[in-house]
Amino acid sequence: MSKKIYLDDIPLSEAWARFSAAMQTADKWQPLDGEEVSLDQALGRVTAQPIFAKISAPHYHASAMDGYAVRAEDTAQASDNNPITLTQIKYVDTGDPLPGWANAVVPIENAQMLEVRGQKLEVGDSDLQPLTSHIQIRSALTPWSHVRAMGEDMVATELVLPSNHLLRPVDLGAIAGCGHSGVNVRRQPRVAVIPTGTELVPAGSTVKVGDIIEYNSLVLAAQVQTWGGVATRYNIVPDNFDQIVATVREAAATHDLILLNAGSSSGSEDFSARVVESLGTLLVHGVAVRPGHPVILGMLDETKTQTPKSKIPIIGIPGYPVSAALTGEIFVEPILAKWLGRSANQQPTLEATISRKVLSPMGDDEYMRVTVGKVGRRVVATPLSRGAGVITSLVRADGIVRIPRLSEGLQAGDGVTVHLYRTPTEIDHTIVAIGSHDLCLDLLSQFIAEKSAMRLASANVGSLGGLIALGRGEAHLAGTHLLDPDTGEYNVSYIQRYLPDTPIVLMTFVYRDQGLIVPKGNPKKIRTLADLEHASFVNRQRGAGTRVLLDFEIGKIGLSPESIRGYEREEYTHLAVAAAVASGVADCGLGIHSAASALDLDFVPLFKERYDLAIPKEFFESELMRPLLETINDSKFKESVKKLAGYDIRGMGNIAAQLL
Amino acid sequence: MSKKIYLDDIPLSEAWARFSAAMQTADKWQPLDGEEVSLDQALGRVTAQPIFAKISAPHYHASAMDGYAVRAEDTAQASDNNPITLTQIKYVDTGDPLPGWANAVVPIENAQMLEVRGQKLEVGDSDLQPLTSHIQIRSALTPWSHVRAMGEDMVATELVLPSNHLLRPVDLGAIAGCGHSGVNVRRQPRVAVIPTGTELVPAGSTVKVGDIIEYNSLVLAAQVQTWGGVATRYNIVPDNFDQIVATVREAAATHDLILLNAGSSSGSEDFSARVVESLGTLLVHGVAVRPGHPVILGMLDETKTQTPKSKIPIIGIPGYPVSAALTGEIFVEPILAKWLGRSANQQPTLEATISRKVLSPMGDDEYMRVTVGKVGRRVVATPLSRGAGVITSLVRADGIVRIPRLSEGLQAGDGVTVHLYRTPTEIDHTIVAIGSHDLCLDLLSQFIAEKSAMRLASANVGSLGGLIALGRGEAHLAGTHLLDPDTGEYNVSYIQRYLPDTPIVLMTFVYRDQGLIVPKGNPKKIRTLADLEHASFVNRQRGAGTRVLLDFEIGKIGLSPESIRGYEREEYTHLAVAAAVASGVADCGLGIHSAASALDLDFVPLFKERYDLAIPKEFFESELMRPLLETINDSKFKESVKKLAGYDIRGMGNIAAQLL
Repeated sequence: MSKKIYLDDIPLSEAWARFSAAMQTADKWQPLDGEEVSLDQALGRVTAQPIFAKISAPHYHASAMDGYAVRAEDTAQASDNNPITLTQIKYVDTGDPLPGWANAVVPIENAQMLEVRGQKLEVGDSDLQPLTSHIQIRSALTPWSHVRAMGEDMVATELVLPSNHLLRPVDLGAIAGCGHSGVNVRRQPRVAVIPTGTELVPAGSTVKVGDIIEYNSLVLAAQVQTWGGVATRYNIVPDNFDQIVATVREAAATHDLILLNAGSSSGSEDFSARVVESLGTLLVHGVAVRPGHPVILGMLDETKTQTPKSKIPIIGIPGYPVSAALTGEIFVEPILAKWLGRSANQQPTLEATISRKVLSPMGDDEYMRVTVGKVGRRVVATPLSRGAGVITSLVRADGIVRIPRLSEGLQAGDGVTVHLYRTPTEIDHTIVAIGSHDLCLDLLSQFIAEKSAMRLASANVGSLGGLIALGRGEAHLAGTHLLDPDTGEYNVSYIQRYLPDTPIVLMTFVYRDQGLIVPKGNPKKIRTLADLEHASFVNRQRGAGTRVLLDFEIGKIGLSPESIRGYEREEYTHLAVAAAVASGVADCGLGIHSAASALDLDFVPLFKERYDLAIPKEFFESELMRPLLETINDSKFKESVKKLAGYDIRGMGNIAAQLL
Repeated sequence: MSKKIYLDDIPLSEAWARFSAAMQTADKWQPLDGEEVSLDQALGRVTAQPIFAKISAPHYHASAMDGYAVRAEDTAQASDNNPITLTQIKYVDTGDPLPGWANAVVPIENAQMLEVRGQKLEVGDSDLQPLTSHIQIRSALTPWSHVRAMGEDMVATELVLPSNHLLRPVDLGAIAGCGHSGVNVRRQPRVAVIPTGTELVPAGSTVKVGDIIEYNSLVLAAQVQTWGGVATRYNIVPDNFDQIVATVREAAATHDLILLNAGSSSGSEDFSARVVESLGTLLVHGVAVRPGHPVILGMLDETKTQTPKSKIPIIGIPGYPVSAALTGEIFVEPILAKWLGRSANQQPTLEATISRKVLSPMGDDEYMRVTVGKVGRRVVATPLSRGAGVITSLVRADGIVRIPRLSEGLQAGDGVTVHLYRTPTEIDHTIVAIGSHDLCLDLLSQFIAEKSAMRLASANVGSLGGLIALGRGEAHLAGTHLLDPDTGEYNVSYIQRYLPDTPIVLMTFVYRDQGLIVPKGNPKKIRTLADLEHASFVNRQRGAGTRVLLDFEIGKIGLSPESIRGYEREEYTHLAVAAAVASGVADCGLGIHSAASALDLDFVPLFKERYDLAIPKEFFESELMRPLLETINDSKFKESVKKLAGYDIRGMGNIAAQLL
């Protein structure tokens, strides 16, 4: 085993310069050759050559209507008071060629009082119209009236489409219409996606602790397909140097680009850099982008891979799913775009205001996932989780804000450019919810998506965080379940304190059970809070709604915090509490039913807690909010909530308070 | 043959109401059922059910770094001045599970001065690190540092994606990551596309006069594919009632929707309405949309089609290509969207100013094709050809402006909403050229597309029309070849007259041959304008650059208009002149070489004419224009122009004048 290779981050621009220079040297930094495909296979392909018209369209003077071909000169005197009878006529259907002597068409509906062998006809007697020998008209025609002149659409030899054009349905029609049966399009880049890692298991496997579900290859292959390439997904290769080398060598024979997933870091089983070195040139190991760092860029050498093909670029893709997907966007997309003759990074952009301060490391180009909402007149971008392992941060992202190198980050209120994953129209139709998370919000989002073009996007920052976000103008509503221990009332006093100047409608959403999460079968027979005296507990952090509730309730029964074993052990989410119970660290914890269900634990319901939606009056009355309010009052939605364990729909949709 | 069926236009909204009511009655106005597909087949499909997490991700507490699992409590006292040695450690790679006793990870790079059996190690000696029995650290860790806690990404049972969601690459990753191997997606709607017409020939056929190349089925099938359906293209069916009935009946057995192309009007061979009546119910014949009018909407009846399937909607699509494609957008897209559970018409929109007055018939909803350009600070929409037969008007269109029923049209300067076919970014990168058309502009457009992200879009309105458009702020440049007969100078005096207040850079683009277009072999041996005295001529319209040139040149040789037979016969384009020569109507006409080539005629060059680009100074100096100016000075581009018959590149790129 050779000495390990150090990760040595270099700036993105320098990494690109090295990589593209190497591709240039290898004659790989240019569009791929064209191939001829039939037009019914050409949708979404990119023209490799300009398309010139082979024939004109129409290729003859054609009637533009059903009617009679005439000479315009013969009609000059016709008027309402002076109907003229024409005998040099020829019946033509739309598209029929004009006789050589004709230069205009009288539409059927203007050719009146026809006769065929003494039989009077009317407009609409179409079966007989072709047989008529003369027509009468009451208005004059200018030359070429109701005629599609030769070349009206396309003139033989003219440019119909340029090269490097992405073919849409109407383009195919135009290409066929000017005489072609096929079109020369760029060959689709072939990309090999090779997942490596002994800990990886395929999607859908039954997992045991330590198994990692391999889905980066799924995402990368789908990205390649989206960007116009064809991907081959290889089976998972274990962390074995020789096996990886063999697989890369095999892939090099039949692909234009190789994506080697994971093993690109510097851990004990990270072989990618050594594989690249042994089969070619390691150009870059580590790029100062975030997320993404341990990117490898290299060029395989045909003498080392022993394939007849020329040099093949290879990219070592980091293992974290967000890093992997963004490495695809940052490195793979521009290569495929270049090979297809297209411009890279054609995402639409939107100017927005960043909602909070963001620190970013000076040395890195950061790609920050954000949600974007149009809240009132402001377009607000809110950062999502920056964890490289949180694939849902990409799923939920409306776009990416790029924080350049040598910037220390952003101040709240700074203007930013968002590279959008959604259309601006989708952004306009998004209801932004920030606050405490609840399963019923997911259900609400589901119902709204089914019934309207609106979308409910929710971010979980806790009840208080949600109210603060409302105050900052970052959201249209906040989910909140804050009990005032002095009054026993929910939410009102908090809103008065944190949103003193904003008129708020407080609407009851659901009552939900808070209770004790206990192991399956409830071995310690825990039934009430009083039982905490002979069981170990796991607590929520100070300030959490559930913690407030606990303190309020133990106060009522005169139980002191000191008497609860584990009161000082704090977790930050319902699920973390459940996990502590599942692992045996604690006998029980206070939380909601769904957290217990998630880990297949039992649940002892103790209290009903009210979960409200706080909605600024301005948005409550807006068009945007209507589908949400309608859904909350929809009996089908209520039925669905009722079926969830631990929920109660009494009061759903009631206005609990109108504040200010 | 039964009596013909009358076309009876009804408003679009009423047509939709009838059609959707009939579909509702037939249980067809709802999303299709779901089907399970594996994740690698799911890109671009639409979820039929919400996706809930089967397992949490991670499904165990996982190390977020390569390093050592430790208890955070053990590190509390560590600092630079107080290094602490830890012995309860376990080496973990990124992704490895934490031991039950651990709650934090020390990254490799922070674990210093390691020893393995007396052998000193350094950071990076990764092969030996797993063997070390103790590490020293110099900073404290908070609990859960460098740990990906169970459920950090997704919590079992939570909603990961709603139903009716179009699956993107990262979505597939998230679905796999929470334990699924497949996903339930909407079945793809199956659409039959049946072209009918005896005059139709397949794409690529050698055409004779009267043949029409059938490409509507190509466009409609590609549209269906774009909108998430699967299309079957049938062979061309001749205008034969029984054959059409048989084909529709066959298609009804295996499709969700039938598109019967053409024959939907009221001509002698328009069978579609009768076919629909004989196999089901004719709901609508004629919709007041423009282009589109003769649309048929119907519902096939299983008792009449004698298929086991239930009622099947059928749409009779007009034959004109623009009408056909827009009928696809107006009627087919919303049906497919409904069946996939998606919102219809999700095109992005852009607010623009209409550049000229548009009259629109009161009774119709009009779908007007426009180009859109950002000219200075204004976003200007310019109407394209409204001919229903001009497919290139859709190819060139940047979007559609909908002029509603009961509106008489638009005034120049009115604000309009453009439903975009391109992204707003593409619009920003578009150089808008209006004026006289020339083949070299096509070539220029081609070169620019290959080398930059910019796009040159040109519209042909003649030289003078182009200067007027510049004055109105509708374009970035105008191609012009206007000879001043008083001075013999090109363009300058016209610009001074029509653009007195705009600083203009006048740049020479090409010199091109004007000459006589004559039949192949030049049977009349025409060599000079003097020969016009014994040949019939076809002229251009008054005001055309070529007409100005003719009058100037015959004046020089003392030839009078009266002595030229056919001087009064005016055509409006170079090609129309060539067509008149090709058909034998005239012996010759004055025009450019490419018009002769287009119709395989001969050409007698007579004069060199200067074709300039007039560019407002403001745009000449802009970033947008740079790729154009660079291309004009590119030797490869010049070489390409030189190769074209009838062009001369001397002076290309020279500044002929700076006006104002």
